[in-house]
Amino acid sequence: MKNNHYLNMLREIKSAAFATVDENGCPQNRIIDIMLVENDALIFCTARGKAFYRQLCLNPNTAILGMTKTYQTIRLTGKAEHLSDQKYWIDKIFEANPVMNTVYPGQSRYVLEPFCIRNGTLEYFDLSKTPITRASSAIGTAEPLTEGFEISDACISCGKCAKGCPQQCIQQGNIYEIKQTHCLHCGYCMEVCPIHAIKRRIL
Amino acid sequence: MKNNHYLNMLREIKSAAFATVDENGCPQNRIIDIMLVENDALIFCTARGKAFYRQLCLNPNTAILGMTKTYQTIRLTGKAEHLSDQKYWIDKIFEANPVMNTVYPGQSRYVLEPFCIRNGTLEYFDLSKTPITRASSAIGTAEPLTEGFEISDACISCGKCAKGCPQQCIQQGNIYEIKQTHCLHCGYCMEVCPIHAIKRRIL
Repeated sequence: MKNNHYLNMLREIKSAAFATVDENGCPQNRIIDIMLVENDALIFCTARGKAFYRQLCLNPNTAILGMTKTYQTIRLTGKAEHLSDQKYWIDKIFEANPVMNTVYPGQSRYVLEPFCIRNGTLEYFDLSKTPITRASSAIGTAEPLTEGFEISDACISCGKCAKGCPQQCIQQGNIYEIKQTHCLHCGYCMEVCPIHAIKRRIL
Repeated sequence: MKNNHYLNMLREIKSAAFATVDENGCPQNRIIDIMLVENDALIFCTARGKAFYRQLCLNPNTAILGMTKTYQTIRLTGKAEHLSDQKYWIDKIFEANPVMNTVYPGQSRYVLEPFCIRNGTLEYFDLSKTPITRASSAIGTAEPLTEGFEISDACISCGKCAKGCPQQCIQQGNIYEIKQTHCLHCGYCMEVCPIHAIKRRIL
């Protein structure tokens, strides 16, 4: 699936959870509507009076999480950029999302500031299927994440990992192999391997 | 509404966004199921192999966000505590949430570790009503948050704030007053007040 497909899924979910880090280094989380997807970038806005706005100005790192009605989740993690030309973007956002006029009627719309994310990692996760399915990609200059576990050449083919794997996603072989697209990242295989041949892909 | 009512709303929403801060000081966000609500505490679990588990061990601050199908959101922000007696809690979680057996069958359930949040701030927000409605409370030893804006005695009753307020939640008077339960926290009133009589409740 293309990146733009994931961004469009987020746009369709519309109300997503946006996590930031506050001035005390603590996580904060709130629902924000995704207003536009343009040129492989995601666009949203918030009001200058809100804690969210202050947090973005101090630390632009943001983790956006949306879930479809059928339990597929999309995660976009990257830095939010404050867009200049505020009136242009706010007017464009209101044109594409007319319901915003009921929340911020008249001139009050200009208390909103537009932001975009154009570089970031994307993760897709579908817990509704057995086995679960996941995929990683990225937008802009970001690189897809490499997470989870892998089995090294030290594998003695004892099969304990495959037997224990809750999603049955480890393939038999001279060297067993984790099917990354179906892995929960739970780490159970690493714990049951008698010779410690299973490692994190990123330490 | 009582705190337990909000926790039970989160339990009913079940799949909520859990934000943490990672080892680089960046926010991370993922869907986690709320497994139990007991004695005014919220209980969840995660696998030892997951980034979420490592993040909680390094920095227990967590911001949980759930949204009902009718756009009411509940936010619980506090420190996650690792529960001892792992088997007792994981068995109890699986008993109350039998679907977990399809994700972690057999002995693999014990790769999960139980956590609870018993102290934290709670915020309720209903964007589906006009004007919007909000409420703050807390569980355990935490105090409810005081956010948003207030009008000081310096008010000259010019009415510009009330006229501009997007939610029409400022009440006329010798000193105008913001109805806190209907305030967006957008800050527009503070910006339009000609004599700077409107301040943040927490600076």
